Amino acid sequence: MLTYDMEARGALPRYEYIYRCIRRDILSGELASGEKLPGKRALAEHLGVSVITVGAAYDQLEAEGCVEAVPRRGFFVSESVSSPPPAAAGGEGGPGRESVDEWRLDLRSGRVDPALFPVGVWARLTRRALAESSPALLRSVPHEGLYELREAIARYLRGSRGLAADAERIVIGAGSEQLYLMLGQLFAGETVAVEDPGYAKIREVYSRSPLRCRCVSLDAQGMDVEALRASGAAVAHISPAHQYPTGVVTTLQRRLGLLAWAGETGGYIVEDDYDSELRLTHRPLPALAGLDREGRVIYMNTFSQTLAPGLRVSYLLLPERLAARWRETLGFYSNAVPALEQEVLARFISGGYYERHLARLRKTCRERRAALLAALAEGPLAGRVEPEDSGAGPHLLLRLRTEESDAALKERAARMGLRLAFLSDFAADAARAEQHALVLNYAALSRERLQEAARALAGLLA
Amino acid sequence: MLTYDMEARGALPRYEYIYRCIRRDILSGELASGEKLPGKRALAEHLGVSVITVGAAYDQLEAEGCVEAVPRRGFFVSESVSSPPPAAAGGEGGPGRESVDEWRLDLRSGRVDPALFPVGVWARLTRRALAESSPALLRSVPHEGLYELREAIARYLRGSRGLAADAERIVIGAGSEQLYLMLGQLFAGETVAVEDPGYAKIREVYSRSPLRCRCVSLDAQGMDVEALRASGAAVAHISPAHQYPTGVVTTLQRRLGLLAWAGETGGYIVEDDYDSELRLTHRPLPALAGLDREGRVIYMNTFSQTLAPGLRVSYLLLPERLAARWRETLGFYSNAVPALEQEVLARFISGGYYERHLARLRKTCRERRAALLAALAEGPLAGRVEPEDSGAGPHLLLRLRTEESDAALKERAARMGLRLAFLSDFAADAARAEQHALVLNYAALSRERLQEAARALAGLLA
Repeated sequence: MLTYDMEARGALPRYEYIYRCIRRDILSGELASGEKLPGKRALAEHLGVSVITVGAAYDQLEAEGCVEAVPRRGFFVSESVSSPPPAAAGGEGGPGRESVDEWRLDLRSGRVDPALFPVGVWARLTRRALAESSPALLRSVPHEGLYELREAIARYLRGSRGLAADAERIVIGAGSEQLYLMLGQLFAGETVAVEDPGYAKIREVYSRSPLRCRCVSLDAQGMDVEALRASGAAVAHISPAHQYPTGVVTTLQRRLGLLAWAGETGGYIVEDDYDSELRLTHRPLPALAGLDREGRVIYMNTFSQTLAPGLRVSYLLLPERLAARWRETLGFYSNAVPALEQEVLARFISGGYYERHLARLRKTCRERRAALLAALAEGPLAGRVEPEDSGAGPHLLLRLRTEESDAALKERAARMGLRLAFLSDFAADAARAEQHALVLNYAALSRERLQEAARALAGLLA
Repeated sequence: MLTYDMEARGALPRYEYIYRCIRRDILSGELASGEKLPGKRALAEHLGVSVITVGAAYDQLEAEGCVEAVPRRGFFVSESVSSPPPAAAGGEGGPGRESVDEWRLDLRSGRVDPALFPVGVWARLTRRALAESSPALLRSVPHEGLYELREAIARYLRGSRGLAADAERIVIGAGSEQLYLMLGQLFAGETVAVEDPGYAKIREVYSRSPLRCRCVSLDAQGMDVEALRASGAAVAHISPAHQYPTGVVTTLQRRLGLLAWAGETGGYIVEDDYDSELRLTHRPLPALAGLDREGRVIYMNTFSQTLAPGLRVSYLLLPERLAARWRETLGFYSNAVPALEQEVLARFISGGYYERHLARLRKTCRERRAALLAALAEGPLAGRVEPEDSGAGPHLLLRLRTEESDAALKERAARMGLRLAFLSDFAADAARAEQHALVLNYAALSRERLQEAARALAGLLA
């Protein structure tokens, strides 16, 4: 029976402590591939915790791909999870989207609800920054960004994502797209692999950059390592926490496989962690950047996604070995984010407002997700659609039982004022893409609007 | 004798009205190449204005290259100024620079004095924007930028630069470099000519973009049209108002020659007007974009240069024929400037604060320029340096009488805490560049600091 000292857990919640212990044992080989884990009830009794606690730990391990649940038999350690030692935990992701058009009902826009943004706090911090340090407006920002902000982000990443982050390796950008542009220049002349299907802007920016952009397919575990190898890419740009639009969460095995690829080929992985803060069930998986021992991962995230689209701040955490190359190749660029905004954001993070905001955001998203799933299961759509959702972020896939083409559905929907996106919209080759898989972004819609959306979809399929 | 109806001048100052009338007659051919203008005193008597007024008009015409002053003989209409009808007046330029290092005395940084930035007004407008339209923080900004800001800029350009600007053709960017990046993608696959010597960042950004970047030499009139033609470029990126670092003001003839080149080859001209607002003597020359009848000029300017380097806002005014191509190629990019900053800047311009700020800035720069020229002429440097300055912007060239190399001088200066830049620093091929021409940026330095700079230079040359 697995024996862990529950007194040694410190401030960690019980379930997380257990999850971490088991994961450590799996990765170290203590628990071998294929080995069966003890039953939940037995382990709970053994460790003196509740069955719910053990269940939560097992769920997290499963979500991460460390163990597999076999119906009516229990949990087994997955094949090929081994060696590279784990770091502290985290999550991962992709991009920061937005639309400007007005729709009656927009199920495509990945924005979070702007009503949740703490306008009052932000305005107060802005006034204070102006009053206390009017130089905030004037200061020349260092090329990599305001030091206070980089420090605040580093502290946040250490605390919330378990990354060994330091301010010196952080670069601030004016939104993710501006950082894609920079990466497009950093990797000039090389081949960069992007996910297919994937977030179109990444492909669009790279295909206009001085590099070769290759689309690499995904399977249920994440980016296909063999296909990546075959592409000849030197860089893979992925969103392992929660791929957009498929929702695939890259499993731990695959993460290790991707890291192994980078180590062998001397390649780099851009880990686009765009919505990891909005993981709604389980804890976020550990970031690739946290597993990375060889300095092969560029961690990337944005605030436009979780705060407001009108705020344009994103950042990179560069591995040490790339920091010098960055400064040499791109160090001449002036920082593109206004000094005042950087100053206010630094205060917002350091004052604990960002984490409080995220907690509120997750709570709302969780409620909305539940409302949406209920509306889909109980309404007139019951049996006609099939949601596929890991709860890893504020969008899910909805497979529609219909013969109509995606294009035709989208056009009919648009005439009803309903904006839809399909998986096929995100594929490099739309003709070969899977049909009838709706990409449903629900974070910006209230319970009532989601119910309305379910009715509208039912009407569309009728 | 030239006869103009002085009553018809409307709100224009007398000298400007006379300048415009003569320019119109030169461009229309009424006044032929080589023709002598009436003497100042005679024309003044004839029109019933002061000699000073006529002198100011002639000076402006001369600065623009419409007429040439021949010592002791008078003013003559220049050769080869003809056809393309003039637009209202304006000025032009280049980039927005900054440094972060601390120097005892920095003669290299092109920044204006941050102390002149109206922090109080900006802070008040920010508070008001937050109070009156907290959505200012949240709104999703259209791809091309906040409409209110684009409209405010269009009004400003119509009023102050005489350009037929409308908001629909304006694109807001997060600083000039971000717009260079965008232009680098817009002109992917083409050859773009940049000025040599020139502002290094333009060359650096383009050379990392998916295009071919060619350096084209300048002469005393601006970019050499024959060299431009020989380069095979489809696009010329120039700063005709006041080239950085040479200070060359592109003459009207040359402007027409460049427009002719664009018309013949179907090429484009990027008119980088970075410091035209800081023209200190005469009026700024008419912008190329104002002379352009065929939609061949992309007008570009920045606010980081005149307001504060920590503010990152720049813009393009696209010709109609390029606006569609822009939207098609680059329209997917999210706007990179925060909504709040765009809102505040729109209020700042519309409220008349920007023009008031510019007037104050020009006044200060004029005083500083005078102080610098006096310190150079009267101090221990007298006879050892030769300033070359058209008063077209806040930097000038200073030719040093010395045998020492630029590199050696710079190094010795650095040891004294004195930061210098030479023309040779901006040349594509430093070995072939002119030596001993100091590029002196004086806008950020007070009278006392400029006197100190003169003393320091004297010490350096001693």
